[in-house]
Amino acid sequence: MKKSTIVTIVSVTVIIPLFLLGLSINENIAAQEAINAVPKIAKFESRSAEWGKNFPREYDSYMLTKKSDKIDDVLKKEPALVVMWAGYGFSKDYNAPRGHAYAIEDNVNTLRTGAPVDANSGPMPTACWTCKSPDVPRLMDKKGENDYFTGKWARWGNEIVNPIGCADCHDNETMKLTVTRDYLKRALDAEGSLKYADASHQELRSLVCAQCHAEYYFKMTEWTDANGEKQKAGVVTFPWENGFSAEAMEAYYDQREFADWTHALSKTPMLKAQHPGYETFITGIHGQNGVACADCHMPYVREGGVKYSSHNVRSPLEDIENTCMNCHSKNEKEFKAIVQRKLDRKNELSRTVTSILAQAHLEAARAWELGATEEEMKPALLDIRHGQWRWDYSIAAHGSFFHAPEETLRGLGSAINKAQDARIKLRLILAKYNDAEYVVPDFSSKEKAQAVIRLPYEKLVEEKIQFLNGLRKDWVKQATEKGLFDPKTTEGVVYKVSYQ
Amino acid sequence: MKKSTIVTIVSVTVIIPLFLLGLSINENIAAQEAINAVPKIAKFESRSAEWGKNFPREYDSYMLTKKSDKIDDVLKKEPALVVMWAGYGFSKDYNAPRGHAYAIEDNVNTLRTGAPVDANSGPMPTACWTCKSPDVPRLMDKKGENDYFTGKWARWGNEIVNPIGCADCHDNETMKLTVTRDYLKRALDAEGSLKYADASHQELRSLVCAQCHAEYYFKMTEWTDANGEKQKAGVVTFPWENGFSAEAMEAYYDQREFADWTHALSKTPMLKAQHPGYETFITGIHGQNGVACADCHMPYVREGGVKYSSHNVRSPLEDIENTCMNCHSKNEKEFKAIVQRKLDRKNELSRTVTSILAQAHLEAARAWELGATEEEMKPALLDIRHGQWRWDYSIAAHGSFFHAPEETLRGLGSAINKAQDARIKLRLILAKYNDAEYVVPDFSSKEKAQAVIRLPYEKLVEEKIQFLNGLRKDWVKQATEKGLFDPKTTEGVVYKVSYQ
Repeated sequence: MKKSTIVTIVSVTVIIPLFLLGLSINENIAAQEAINAVPKIAKFESRSAEWGKNFPREYDSYMLTKKSDKIDDVLKKEPALVVMWAGYGFSKDYNAPRGHAYAIEDNVNTLRTGAPVDANSGPMPTACWTCKSPDVPRLMDKKGENDYFTGKWARWGNEIVNPIGCADCHDNETMKLTVTRDYLKRALDAEGSLKYADASHQELRSLVCAQCHAEYYFKMTEWTDANGEKQKAGVVTFPWENGFSAEAMEAYYDQREFADWTHALSKTPMLKAQHPGYETFITGIHGQNGVACADCHMPYVREGGVKYSSHNVRSPLEDIENTCMNCHSKNEKEFKAIVQRKLDRKNELSRTVTSILAQAHLEAARAWELGATEEEMKPALLDIRHGQWRWDYSIAAHGSFFHAPEETLRGLGSAINKAQDARIKLRLILAKYNDAEYVVPDFSSKEKAQAVIRLPYEKLVEEKIQFLNGLRKDWVKQATEKGLFDPKTTEGVVYKVSYQ
Repeated sequence: MKKSTIVTIVSVTVIIPLFLLGLSINENIAAQEAINAVPKIAKFESRSAEWGKNFPREYDSYMLTKKSDKIDDVLKKEPALVVMWAGYGFSKDYNAPRGHAYAIEDNVNTLRTGAPVDANSGPMPTACWTCKSPDVPRLMDKKGENDYFTGKWARWGNEIVNPIGCADCHDNETMKLTVTRDYLKRALDAEGSLKYADASHQELRSLVCAQCHAEYYFKMTEWTDANGEKQKAGVVTFPWENGFSAEAMEAYYDQREFADWTHALSKTPMLKAQHPGYETFITGIHGQNGVACADCHMPYVREGGVKYSSHNVRSPLEDIENTCMNCHSKNEKEFKAIVQRKLDRKNELSRTVTSILAQAHLEAARAWELGATEEEMKPALLDIRHGQWRWDYSIAAHGSFFHAPEETLRGLGSAINKAQDARIKLRLILAKYNDAEYVVPDFSSKEKAQAVIRLPYEKLVEEKIQFLNGLRKDWVKQATEKGLFDPKTTEGVVYKVSYQ
C-alpha cells in the first residue's frame, strides 16, 4: 500500500471524524453556555419574543402550543351545565382550554367576558385577566396589586395583550423559577404545609403552574388610592386557609357566606370551582412521589448535545416516550387504555351528578313558582350549593381524573349524595304544593338548555362580534403603539370560537 | 514464622471457611432438592400436616395464619348493615375474616350457619362449606359435584373438618398449582377473557385464590341420583357470563330474576355480593401490571440458602419489606399513610351508602305498612336492589379499596346514586300516604338495629352454643375416627366469637 493511501485512510477513518466530533462538542458546549448565560432582559418584560432571543429552544417549543388549537364546546357535549350555571357566565360559553399561546385570544373571544364598549363596561372585573398574561405581574408592579384588581375587565384591554409567557414564571436576571403572583405566596403561607420561602426548585416546578392552576375567588378588598378615595378591589385569593380539600374550601366559603353568584333558577348562593389543579394533584400518587407538573408537561428533551425543558406545555400522552417512559415501562397503547379507563370512570360519575343537579335547580325553580318559602327551601339549596361545589372541585381541573383519580371519584360520590339529598327535599316540597310529579323541561341540547334558562344567546353573540371588530381592535392598536404587544408570539394563532 | 504456624493460619483462614461453605452449599442443595422432589401424597389428601412432612417450610408458614386471630365485629362497627341484611344471615353475625387456619372454626361458629340438630336441619345449604376446606374437592371427587351440592350444610359436618390447606391449590403428584373447583374453570371459559386452559403459572398464582375470593351464587340445578330420584343441588356458580364488572353481574342476575333473599323489611328481591376479590383486583394497577395475589400475599422469603413462597397468607402491610419493597421504594410509614388514605376514602363513601340504604329499607317498610301497592313500590325496590348490590360488590372483598381503589369508588358513587333514587321515590310514596315526615327508627347500635329488625338474637346464640357443645363435637369425633381430621393443623386455633 502506498504511503499516501495510508495517510488518506487514516485521515478519513480517524482524523476527520475526530475533528467533526470536536466541532460538535464545541458547538454543544457553546449552545449549553448560551443557555446557561444570564442575558439582559428587562424586569417584567412581557414580550416572550424578547426572551426568546436568548432562549431560542424554549421559545420555539413554547410557540408549538399554538398547535393545540381545537375548540371543544363543553356545553354542547353536556347541556346540563347550562342549567347548572344559569345566571353565570359559564352558561353562555365554555370550551375546553387550548394551548398557552391562546390564553389572551380565548379570554377575549369567549362570551363570558362580554362585549364592553369602553374601559368601564362589561360583566367582568379586572381579575379575569390575572392568569392570562405576563402583562399582569408587570401591571401589578406598576400600579400596585389593589389598583390592578380594581375596575372592569375592559380597563386593561390595551395593556394585557401577550399570552402566558416567560415572565410569568422566570426571574429576568437569574432565569430562576419565581412566583410572580403574590396571592399564591400568601395562600401557601396561610395553608401552612409548605411555606413559600421553603419551596425547593422541584417544588417550584409545580408552584409556578399553581399560580393559575388552582382554585380562587375574588375577595372584595377596600383600599384608598393616592387621591385618598375609597376603592374596591376584587383580589384573586386562594381559599386555602383550612386546607386543600373540597370540604376544607367549602367550609372556608361557608364561614364567609361567600357566593360567586346567585343561581338564576334555584336562587341558590352558588360557588364556582376554578380548576383546583394543584390542590388535587398533590393528593395523587404522582404528587405524593414528588413528581412536578413540569416533569410530565414540560419534559426535558435533547437536541443534539443540548438538553432543555420543552415549553410546549401539553398532555404527556402526546409525548409518552419523553414523559411516562422515564419511570414506567408500558407501551403507548397500554398507557392510553389505562388513562382512558380513568377518564371513563370520572365521566360516568360526573354525568350522574350533572344530570341530578340540573334537575334539582329546575325543581327548585318550580318550588319557588309554587310559592315555597325561604325557610322551606334553605336546606335544599344548601345541599345544591355543596353538591355542585364538590362536583366542580372534582372535575374543573381537567386533568384531575388522572392526577388524582381517587380524590376525584370520592368528591364525585360525595357530590352525588348531596345533590340527591337536595332532590329528596325538593320533591317533598313539590309534593306539599301538589306537584309531586312535576316533569322538568327538556335540557337535552345546548340550545334547549339555553332556552330553558332564557339566555339571549344571539344577542350576546352579536354584541360580542361588534366588540371584537371594534374596541378589541383598538386595544391591540394602542398596545402596539405603546410597544407592549408582541405580534410574533401570537402569529398564526387560529381564531376559533364556539359561536358564529 | 514456623511452618506449623503457617499451616494453622492457612487452615483457619482458608480451609475451614471453605469447608463450612461447602457444607452450607450442600445443605442448601439438599434442602432445595427436598423441596423440588415430588413426594408421595395421596390424591385429595385433605390433611395439610401430611403435605407438611415433605414441605416443612410451607407448612410452618401456613401454620402462622393462626396468629391472625382477632375477632372484628363488623355489625358493631356499622349497625346500618343489620338493617340492610334483615331476613338474611349476615344480619345475625358478621366478622372480618381471620387467617386461613380459622376457615372451618369460623364457619362453624358463626350464627349464620345456625344450629342444626341433625344432617338435615339448619338454615344453610352444603354450598356454604365450599371455600372452607380441602375436604371439599375430596368430597366432590368422591360424590360428584351435584351430590356434593345437594342437601343441608349439616350433611357434611363430619366430613369437612380441615381448614383451607395444601390440597385446595396443589396437585398431589406434581405439586403444580391447580384449580380444584371446576366452577371457576367454567366461569372463566364463559367470561372468555382468559380461558382456563390458557392460564400461565403466573395467572394461576391468582386463579387458585379466585376459587374462593370471587363473587358467586347458588344456582339451583336439577339432577337425577343413582336411584333415579330427582334431586336439587345449589351449585356454586360465578355470574361472569356478561363480564366481571358490577353492572355486568347485575345484568346477569336481573336477566335471571335471581334473588339471594327477599328483604324482611322492604320486601326487595336482594342480591348479596360475596367478596368479588379477583374480579375487582384485575381492574387495579397491580392487576393490570400482571402482579399475582401470591406476589404480595405469599411472598418469596429466604431461610438460609432456601427460597420458598410463604404460606402465611396475610396483608402485605405486615411484611412490607418482602412485598411492596420488591417494586417500590417508599418507607413503611409512607406506605401505610398512602394505604390509609385509600381506606378512608372507601370508608367515607361506603358509610354514606349504608346510611342511605338502611333508611331506604325502613322507608319502604313504612310505605308497605301504609298500604302502598306493589306497582307503586316496584321502581323504588329495583333501585334498592341495584344500589345495595353495587355497594356490596365494591366493598365485600375487604381488600378492594387497595386492589382497585378507583373501581371501588366508582361503584360506591353509583351505589349512592341508586340508593338515593330509591329514597326520592319512597319519600314521594310516603307523602302520598300522608307520612312525608316519617322518622325512621334508631339503628345506631348493633343491638338497636337487631331490635328494629326483630332478630331473636339471644335465642340464636343459645341454640348455637347447644349445637357447638353437641352435634359439632360429634362431627369432630366422627371425622377423627374416620381418619379424616388432622388435629395438628388446628392445634392452638383460638376459639373466639362475637357473641357470648
